[in-house]
Amino acid sequence: MELLDMLTKALIGDDGRTVELSWDNGMRTRFHAMWLRDNALDDKTRSAGNGQRLITILDIPAGTRIAAASVKGGALEISFVPEQKTVSFPAGWLYAHAYDRVELRKGGWTADVVQCWTRATMQNSVPRAAYAAASHDRSVLREWLSAVRTYGFAVMDGLPAESGALCKVSDLFGYIRETNYGRWFEVRAEVNPNNLAYTNLGLQAHTDNPYRDPVPTLQILACIENTVEGGESTVVDGFAVAAALQAEDPHGFRLLSSYPARFEYAGSSGVRLQAKRPMIELGPDGELLCIRFNNRSLAPTVDVPFAEMDKYYAAYRRFAELIEDPGFEVTFKLEAGQAFIVDNTRVMHARKAFSGSGKRWLQGCYADKDGLLSTLAAIEHDFREAAE
Amino acid sequence: MELLDMLTKALIGDDGRTVELSWDNGMRTRFHAMWLRDNALDDKTRSAGNGQRLITILDIPAGTRIAAASVKGGALEISFVPEQKTVSFPAGWLYAHAYDRVELRKGGWTADVVQCWTRATMQNSVPRAAYAAASHDRSVLREWLSAVRTYGFAVMDGLPAESGALCKVSDLFGYIRETNYGRWFEVRAEVNPNNLAYTNLGLQAHTDNPYRDPVPTLQILACIENTVEGGESTVVDGFAVAAALQAEDPHGFRLLSSYPARFEYAGSSGVRLQAKRPMIELGPDGELLCIRFNNRSLAPTVDVPFAEMDKYYAAYRRFAELIEDPGFEVTFKLEAGQAFIVDNTRVMHARKAFSGSGKRWLQGCYADKDGLLSTLAAIEHDFREAAE
Repeated sequence: MELLDMLTKALIGDDGRTVELSWDNGMRTRFHAMWLRDNALDDKTRSAGNGQRLITILDIPAGTRIAAASVKGGALEISFVPEQKTVSFPAGWLYAHAYDRVELRKGGWTADVVQCWTRATMQNSVPRAAYAAASHDRSVLREWLSAVRTYGFAVMDGLPAESGALCKVSDLFGYIRETNYGRWFEVRAEVNPNNLAYTNLGLQAHTDNPYRDPVPTLQILACIENTVEGGESTVVDGFAVAAALQAEDPHGFRLLSSYPARFEYAGSSGVRLQAKRPMIELGPDGELLCIRFNNRSLAPTVDVPFAEMDKYYAAYRRFAELIEDPGFEVTFKLEAGQAFIVDNTRVMHARKAFSGSGKRWLQGCYADKDGLLSTLAAIEHDFREAAE
Repeated sequence: MELLDMLTKALIGDDGRTVELSWDNGMRTRFHAMWLRDNALDDKTRSAGNGQRLITILDIPAGTRIAAASVKGGALEISFVPEQKTVSFPAGWLYAHAYDRVELRKGGWTADVVQCWTRATMQNSVPRAAYAAASHDRSVLREWLSAVRTYGFAVMDGLPAESGALCKVSDLFGYIRETNYGRWFEVRAEVNPNNLAYTNLGLQAHTDNPYRDPVPTLQILACIENTVEGGESTVVDGFAVAAALQAEDPHGFRLLSSYPARFEYAGSSGVRLQAKRPMIELGPDGELLCIRFNNRSLAPTVDVPFAEMDKYYAAYRRFAELIEDPGFEVTFKLEAGQAFIVDNTRVMHARKAFSGSGKRWLQGCYADKDGLLSTLAAIEHDFREAAE
């Protein structure tokens, strides 16, 4: 805790329903009695072993108030009635969890850990790591996982150029999401493809499987062989494109985020996948959460009112134009033994058309961000603890 | 197609930007030229094999208009300019995809396939199937999967009372979502549990893993042994409870759906899971999509403004009271060889405390709704085709 965060005074307000804390940087933050009681850190409220809350909200009297509040040894000590329970809150914990603030965020804001990028800022600094280093050195793994969190994609070099090697990447941080395509799937030109991915055609930048709910939040594509002409991979930061759309056409952005789109896929026997989610998904607080963009599986849009449909389509068109803008595109050609991972809720990927006598053999799989972010947070936690 | 859906007339409007269709039931529905062109069903626009769209929105001229529209053989024939392209739309398809309608839905509406339930309507009609029948008879499987879609849970009888049997259930429709808990996990009382689930305490009705994003959308719990006193399973329809909350306190419902909650779990080494999602998640069109409710992993709420926090907590308390209301609770005691599945985005599950000299051994796993709904839709499609 920095000096900045020193707690100086605690003043009970609103008849014991709140307490106002003063900090030596001049800041004041209020907390509610009920909030403090529910979030008490004592071992009757929270398991000391696993941190889980041991009580339910119904175990806390509805009329809970603060009978006494004081600053002791830099911490806040609170006595609650009618429980007659006294607990202590570290000042740093209170500072980190203060909710008494004025925040004016416009719809489409992104978390601090997210950094948007364009070709200009990213083409020459694609985040990458060697598999051997990432699998043996936790600081290398931390950097690589952190890049996925920050930029939504990263490249991995030095994998075996063999079938199944992509699982080594997901094993670094989490678990494969198995689907009707298998634990992983082949991406190569086929004679009678049931999916356009399995041709030599170029593919417009897209997110994968928007017809699936929940959508796979990560995708890994690993290269076993790539000796064709063309067939480069490209990635586009969907959050950057969404921000650009919002800047030039706020109403269009609002339309794409306010109405669900429909997606569907029924290319294989026994499979009829459908989802109803917006192209630009915002959380209830306006946070930009997920981009879904895929011309191939976009189903008829039936949730936009007639009066808005022309403007909705104009916004969709403009979104597509921006996605195709080379200024947003980062390109690399996967060599045998290389893979890349994309945050499939944010970064679109595309493929250039290919030809020639060579072969292009990739394998793809899905995984989920919960595992990746958890592994990253655990490493960061361990490193912080080791540093202290 | 029923007689009701007969298409009688097509009238071009707004200088070719729209067409108004008349139906013999008196209904009129307008479509936009751009929408019709984008959703054309011809084999240059959609792959005849897999149904995927072969063009992008940028392949369609921005100034696309309808030059001619007529009803031919019950279908709509449209000629687009400047492409000089003529395509036909079956009347039934147009009827099913009409978007020109006035819909006034209040926030919290649910899809037609969803039927809410209470103890009064469900305790004596718990949906169930025998495993042997469900695995051999597609109409039995269809009924069982359909119950999960409609009611959010179902029981399965007649499984082997042995480790791993729960995978037989997920194999019927989809894929296990592997997590840090494994492909499946043991649920039995342990000496030093890292999770309260592994004690003999009762557990408040909850959804699983709200600290995971994406949340596992299905959970299966299978019983291998259950000879204790107590330990009954209960399920509660979260959508029914949310509707009850909304009916008695619309503002409270709005608060729980308008502000994200935070969830976290760090009970095991190497695991630090965190998520930020509301307790009641609505789609952008107000559709009720997901309930997250778990006192154990609810982290401090920091996204609710100070001025709303007391009312937010009051709504959370009331939501919890309703969840505990026996009128919403359906109870059954799993016997060896029985399992149940819950839609973890909707139906909460709980466990009564247990004691006695017997043993209670369950196994649990997660899976996802995309696979279940896809399998169900494919069976329904096959049955419809067979009937025609």
